[in-house]
Amino acid sequence: MITAIELACQAAEAGEVPVGAVLSNDDGVIFAAARNCVESEQNPMAHAEMLVLAQTYAVRGGKYFSDCTLTVTLEPCVLCAGAIAAFRVGKLVFGAYDPKSGAVEHGPRVFSHATTHHKPEIIGGVREAECSALLKAFFAGKR
Amino acid sequence: MITAIELACQAAEAGEVPVGAVLSNDDGVIFAAARNCVESEQNPMAHAEMLVLAQTYAVRGGKYFSDCTLTVTLEPCVLCAGAIAAFRVGKLVFGAYDPKSGAVEHGPRVFSHATTHHKPEIIGGVREAECSALLKAFFAGKR
Repeated sequence: MITAIELACQAAEAGEVPVGAVLSNDDGVIFAAARNCVESEQNPMAHAEMLVLAQTYAVRGGKYFSDCTLTVTLEPCVLCAGAIAAFRVGKLVFGAYDPKSGAVEHGPRVFSHATTHHKPEIIGGVREAECSALLKAFFAGKR
Repeated sequence: MITAIELACQAAEAGEVPVGAVLSNDDGVIFAAARNCVESEQNPMAHAEMLVLAQTYAVRGGKYFSDCTLTVTLEPCVLCAGAIAAFRVGKLVFGAYDPKSGAVEHGPRVFSHATTHHKPEIIGGVREAECSALLKAFFAGKR
């Protein structure tokens, strides 16, 4: 999570909503690390989670990342939760909860339906205060 | 939808779940057309809808496709519905309903929550019988 938070700080410095993500396995191998790039790429799908999944796919190939943990500073949105389900990521660790756009504990609650193809192990609220403070500072600075 | 159905047929011939999609605008300009490529690319995100969105982004750039219609032979899953919301696609037209994996009229009902960032105009069940027959024939052949 510390690496993900550092990436979120880099996002904020670049004028992006501060979100960072890391995809790793149980042996501590980091396959990919990325920050939110929506504004710099002008691509609404360039969320940190989507980028680490795409990078890991590029490096490893293979359809499923069941042996992997995706660590991200913010509760994933519906797009990212869908991608996590598609790749059958084994474990999801996130920092701040996101009542506005989150789709794990809020809104569509992607993994809470009988039709979900996959439900990862989920640990939310890890270093929540730090992850949340970054976001609050960013949006306060925008006002 | 006829083009999307043709692409779905091509998918079936290639051993893929038969789903096809087209992204166009109101002037009839087709920005992208694609079939499901999950097996050929061994990529669980290579759904027809994701491919037309990515292709259109590559061609047009820009964050939003509010002036566009995404036409697809099957009710989008949660990943694709999330991508449609992210790109703020103006209109979604789909063929067969998908009680198992659909996320528009089933399961997480992505566009039905107060937290959704965007809800396209939605027309489901267009040429439903043809779209559905293709899927049924494909899965019957698999058994």
